[in-house]
Amino acid sequence: MDRDSLVRRAVPLAHVYRGDTLESAHTGHVAVVDRDGRLLYAAGDADVVTFTRSSLKPLQALPFIEAGGDAHFGYSRAQVALLCASHSGEPRHVEAVADMLARCGARVDELQCGTHVPRFYEMTGQFPPPPPYSPLAHNCSGKHAGMLACCVLHGYTRDDYVAFDHPLQAAIRRAVAATAGVPVGDLVAGVDGCSAPNYAVPLARLAYAYARLATAGDTSAALAKLAGAMNAHPEMVSGERRSDLALMQAGRGDWVTKIGAEGVQALGIRSRGIGIAIKVADGNTRGLHPATIAVLEALQLVDADARKVLAAWTRPVLANYRGIETGRIEPAVTLVAAPPIRAAE
Amino acid sequence: MDRDSLVRRAVPLAHVYRGDTLESAHTGHVAVVDRDGRLLYAAGDADVVTFTRSSLKPLQALPFIEAGGDAHFGYSRAQVALLCASHSGEPRHVEAVADMLARCGARVDELQCGTHVPRFYEMTGQFPPPPPYSPLAHNCSGKHAGMLACCVLHGYTRDDYVAFDHPLQAAIRRAVAATAGVPVGDLVAGVDGCSAPNYAVPLARLAYAYARLATAGDTSAALAKLAGAMNAHPEMVSGERRSDLALMQAGRGDWVTKIGAEGVQALGIRSRGIGIAIKVADGNTRGLHPATIAVLEALQLVDADARKVLAAWTRPVLANYRGIETGRIEPAVTLVAAPPIRAAE
Repeated sequence: MDRDSLVRRAVPLAHVYRGDTLESAHTGHVAVVDRDGRLLYAAGDADVVTFTRSSLKPLQALPFIEAGGDAHFGYSRAQVALLCASHSGEPRHVEAVADMLARCGARVDELQCGTHVPRFYEMTGQFPPPPPYSPLAHNCSGKHAGMLACCVLHGYTRDDYVAFDHPLQAAIRRAVAATAGVPVGDLVAGVDGCSAPNYAVPLARLAYAYARLATAGDTSAALAKLAGAMNAHPEMVSGERRSDLALMQAGRGDWVTKIGAEGVQALGIRSRGIGIAIKVADGNTRGLHPATIAVLEALQLVDADARKVLAAWTRPVLANYRGIETGRIEPAVTLVAAPPIRAAE
Repeated sequence: MDRDSLVRRAVPLAHVYRGDTLESAHTGHVAVVDRDGRLLYAAGDADVVTFTRSSLKPLQALPFIEAGGDAHFGYSRAQVALLCASHSGEPRHVEAVADMLARCGARVDELQCGTHVPRFYEMTGQFPPPPPYSPLAHNCSGKHAGMLACCVLHGYTRDDYVAFDHPLQAAIRRAVAATAGVPVGDLVAGVDGCSAPNYAVPLARLAYAYARLATAGDTSAALAKLAGAMNAHPEMVSGERRSDLALMQAGRGDWVTKIGAEGVQALGIRSRGIGIAIKVADGNTRGLHPATIAVLEALQLVDADARKVLAAWTRPVLANYRGIETGRIEPAVTLVAAPPIRAAE
């Protein structure tokens, strides 16, 4: 593992202009792999070790789905999508998560995700009410409700469900490792913003996991169920005016996508049998969307209809406090084809 | 001018860890110059063209001070400091700017800075009231009040005072160019967040301007007045719990400092006759403070008392929504001594 690779091998992903002058820039890494895990294209270091953050959520939901938890508690497809969500705390999100807790007999005050200003106020230009906010409106509340439901299902203790040594978290580690094709012992652990364990893997392994997620129809019923729910209910995975909603709408059932904090985006493209993972080295999200769309364009996945849906994210205009345009963000990523694998000479 | 230098020659400034694993990183550039403009130390590209943003404010105030505007309208030293401020919109800031307008006969609705949530709510952990906010509480309102006062002083039109071709802005351009040692024609223009013209210069030229600002006692009465006011009233230049207030308190009258948007910090050190300018390439501020303090440490400017004042900014702890520590930011900058200037062989 090249410890300095995050910085040293990073390449431009997006440029931030003030007027016509480059003011700031975002660099990072891209990996595009097929469903067998072969690297097809890269920018920067495809093997850079990357905390997956919220892009991990579909994999964190696997033990619950594999155990039949959703059927056991009568969760809807929208609620399965919420297991994988960084939702906006819209009323439909909050109500559906409350119902998930009620159906498994867990309480709101058992959620250990914490609270924050629900995202939908910002996205819809509304001024939020003062705190406190319900943990139901935390963007990760669906994942946490699923974790509690999984504890109920197996009779695990619930007050320590985010502890690294809890049996649920051990099961999640095994699922993450198996899906990403990484030995459990190689997962690099950290505590996520929502207090759950999170794992770092080489970027190409995250892309591989999403290639498998997108193409799981004939390999894993649980992965296929999660991908299907995300694609059927992108509004539950994300929220109004959010990037993942736009990406999944643009993909029209073919793209399964999830953003993660600190500049992470993972996508699976079913029709092409590929997974894509992107990491912005500085962790900022503003360059991530133009870079993601540029990668999709480079892979010739974006048609005219998709381009229209993604327009606001492609070259975002920057405006100041009076709404005057001061600059823009431009994509700057160049994918490089990976050399074909040869037999040893 | 090397157009790609911002990215290509950037070096690590700060590392962001989740647990003990590098999650994100901030790269950029540092220039340390003496009052004659000689480069002493650098990291990355000391000549990278950098929008100065709010670090330009003392220079933007020069035409007003040089014309004796502050004495003419009876502005206090605290109000001279406000000309150079990115203040927090605290009651003392708002009241002093309102008085500046009243003294020159301008109105609040003539301020063209726009409005935003006053910064002091965030800094003091208070939830802000809903909008609208007064333009008096905009972080640049002192600068804008000074611009209006300068128009009154000279009988300039006031409704277009932020236009590039307004005589005030032309005078500011001449002052910026003269102080930074850059031909007026080489200033790269853009529109700032507050709608005023802003200029990009090579980073070492910004450092040079701050070396001159800090050591102006025997060269420029106007620059000396501005630096003296900033150091006498750092609480008016910045605000409670803000980084520039901490830096100027740590410097105890010897350091004149100003942060700018998109990861810019400029400092002048009177006792050493030097200026320092730092640009974070990705524009993020979170790595700027540890990098700034690391540069000051490398220059052996930080004593035990200063270290105490700056403690919270040196290696910031990152906590999640439940206040659990998830990581930290570590400085990563290494200054390199510039080769001495030799006579041509």
